[in-house]
Amino acid sequence: MNALDLDASHDPNRTSWIEVAAESDFPIQNLPYGIFSTQRRERRIGVAIGERIVDLRALAEAGLFDGIVDRATLSAETLNAMMAAGRPVWRALRARLSDLLRVGGDRALLEMPQALTTAEEATMHLPAIVGDYVDFYSSIEHATNLGRIFRPQGEPLLPNWRWIPIGYHGRSATIVPSGTPIRRPLGQRKLPGAEAPIFGASTRLDIELEVGFFAGPGNALGEPLPIERAREHIFGSVLVNDWSARDIQAWEYQPLGPFLGKSFATTISPWVVTTEALEPFRVAGPTQIPAPLPYLQRHEPDNYEIALSVLLSSAAMRARAIDAAAISSTSFAGMYWSQAQQLAHAASNGAAIRPGDLFASGTISGARPGSQGSLIELTENGAHPLRLPDGDERAFLEDGDEVSILGRCLRDGFRSIGFGVARGRVLSAAR
Amino acid sequence: MNALDLDASHDPNRTSWIEVAAESDFPIQNLPYGIFSTQRRERRIGVAIGERIVDLRALAEAGLFDGIVDRATLSAETLNAMMAAGRPVWRALRARLSDLLRVGGDRALLEMPQALTTAEEATMHLPAIVGDYVDFYSSIEHATNLGRIFRPQGEPLLPNWRWIPIGYHGRSATIVPSGTPIRRPLGQRKLPGAEAPIFGASTRLDIELEVGFFAGPGNALGEPLPIERAREHIFGSVLVNDWSARDIQAWEYQPLGPFLGKSFATTISPWVVTTEALEPFRVAGPTQIPAPLPYLQRHEPDNYEIALSVLLSSAAMRARAIDAAAISSTSFAGMYWSQAQQLAHAASNGAAIRPGDLFASGTISGARPGSQGSLIELTENGAHPLRLPDGDERAFLEDGDEVSILGRCLRDGFRSIGFGVARGRVLSAAR
Repeated sequence: MNALDLDASHDPNRTSWIEVAAESDFPIQNLPYGIFSTQRRERRIGVAIGERIVDLRALAEAGLFDGIVDRATLSAETLNAMMAAGRPVWRALRARLSDLLRVGGDRALLEMPQALTTAEEATMHLPAIVGDYVDFYSSIEHATNLGRIFRPQGEPLLPNWRWIPIGYHGRSATIVPSGTPIRRPLGQRKLPGAEAPIFGASTRLDIELEVGFFAGPGNALGEPLPIERAREHIFGSVLVNDWSARDIQAWEYQPLGPFLGKSFATTISPWVVTTEALEPFRVAGPTQIPAPLPYLQRHEPDNYEIALSVLLSSAAMRARAIDAAAISSTSFAGMYWSQAQQLAHAASNGAAIRPGDLFASGTISGARPGSQGSLIELTENGAHPLRLPDGDERAFLEDGDEVSILGRCLRDGFRSIGFGVARGRVLSAAR
Repeated sequence: MNALDLDASHDPNRTSWIEVAAESDFPIQNLPYGIFSTQRRERRIGVAIGERIVDLRALAEAGLFDGIVDRATLSAETLNAMMAAGRPVWRALRARLSDLLRVGGDRALLEMPQALTTAEEATMHLPAIVGDYVDFYSSIEHATNLGRIFRPQGEPLLPNWRWIPIGYHGRSATIVPSGTPIRRPLGQRKLPGAEAPIFGASTRLDIELEVGFFAGPGNALGEPLPIERAREHIFGSVLVNDWSARDIQAWEYQPLGPFLGKSFATTISPWVVTTEALEPFRVAGPTQIPAPLPYLQRHEPDNYEIALSVLLSSAAMRARAIDAAAISSTSFAGMYWSQAQQLAHAASNGAAIRPGDLFASGTISGARPGSQGSLIELTENGAHPLRLPDGDERAFLEDGDEVSILGRCLRDGFRSIGFGVARGRVLSAAR
């Protein structure tokens, strides 16, 4: 079970008759799904390849997937039905798409130019209706860093952390696709030494660099999902920016956890990179000590080698045409708790998981300087602001700042694939 | 603004031509909405009156609400569209229904016996698709009691509690209608003095007596809902049992709040008692000291006088035909934070609220013995088990136990109305 589960669709030498730049996130080895619309096409499922989008509804209506998956699933306005279809369907569909797009494959799509559009013409939407959104806290470096900041008097890592993939439910209504402006939240905060809190615009607006996965087929209420089968229930992954108002969060979060400090917005990248596409990049995670309880024990490598980075540009930088600055770079491979462990844990009490549920990893931080996934960590709670290329400083986000999260899988012997971008620009607060 | 906003539909002397028992929860002054089906009718909206259900889809198709609300809204399989329609529509529809059902009113429904069914024939479903579920913590007695139990070393009420209606997001996928069996959850718990946690069936399964409200029209992302308008965004209320595994909760809840200790099931009563029906029972809540920040300041009485009770029957009691025992009785009127304050707070950071979102109050506990809304409080963390009528004892729930939550509004000069029931029976754990 430890060998990678590869097929011809992962062949690094396979190329498409559609032109794909060498540095593109979307070569034929990727084939991520998303929901797009154009002036002439209402919302529908697309597959990204290079700078093009394949209109899956058009292909389905032409009968190109008959026998693999029903046309209604591929003609839907969200990916929920495809997420529900399950791994055998996902694999067959991927194989068929790869064959339709490869040099020397089936020529049916080549003869349907109307089934292709350009990324430039398309507006991207949320990939799925997210029934429930769960955010974990699975990087040991992040949990340790935040524990130091929020609970300076105690042990940074709480006693339960190495036993439980700690998580909580977030707000599904405020998950937005990349590009949606982020309004600075109002909220209660209590200044150090103040007797009473005040209400107003957050002054400690932050990001959290995360990777999330969309659930595939769910479980019945009351029936846990064993970890051995967890990967079959993970459709694919996206980049996540869990925007966080640290001042609101610090004042509100005890004893029931983060609420308004997080619920104002969560940005995701619009292209869902499938679990199949990620297979060549599957690696073993860090050794877990103590060994997890049996229901959380891994039976195969289940982390992913994804290089992640965060770019920031200010309004002043854009006005002077200065490129966005890389403020963090890290890897998803070192996460303590894996996606499979997160899912098995979330369903271990019999809670129902539905296709399209989103599970985010929690902030991804590494051990070395510059590899932390949030400003509160990068600046040591604001004590050491970042210096931007134009000389300006940042402890937390200012209005007009734009944050982009990027992700890319790299491994010797395989064609690199990427996630596109999760981007958002900060607007001034309401009123 | 302090006068109650009453009309002829609240007239205590108004009676229906449908027979309604004196003690019925559903006289003509109530008119709650729910989603029902029968062997011959697929899911649709109904209105409860006495032991009957009015089929709103049948009435809408006959044109009886033309000019008030479109037929599609009333022919839907959920109440979400009606919740979105807004208060003027809700009021006009209530007035029309009251007129169709009252003695001496419009005879149109009287001539459509096929538009009535009996409660006995009907299966009740969830009233709405719940986009996001938020659970508050708004009883000062409950927060104090739980603080004492979970944090015996510190102040029971945390410093933020009197400033913030503390809340968190729960799992919307596991909200179930009354009658759905509740499987005892598996989970991690750590026994006192143990070095490591164990995984298995919860041994401290508890209830939480709550009242929840369904949101009406929502707000746009980034635009808070001012408290002055909060009541216009509250469609109606239901009874809630927030089943809780105290052992799982105690081990997992720091620092991000309750997760699997709560996410396995939440039972709600199927009939939504509208904000209009509750109007005669609107009362001032307790004085809040310190005064809340302006965005949370009440401008009118906004609590509700609802008498609540919890009944418990064990398998052994039912086998011997012993009536369920009342284990708690309390009132919703004393809640520290009101529904309007909860909603204004939840949207204060610009988070989008959607029609059909459910907001639960948190456990409702009073000050006097026997008025606490959970077993952990009633039994002082299990130290003083309850004695059941057959002599058996209960610290926490056993398999086969059935819990029913009831609620009823009583006020001099008004016809009493009720909520029906939120009931669930505990099944043994999986495996």
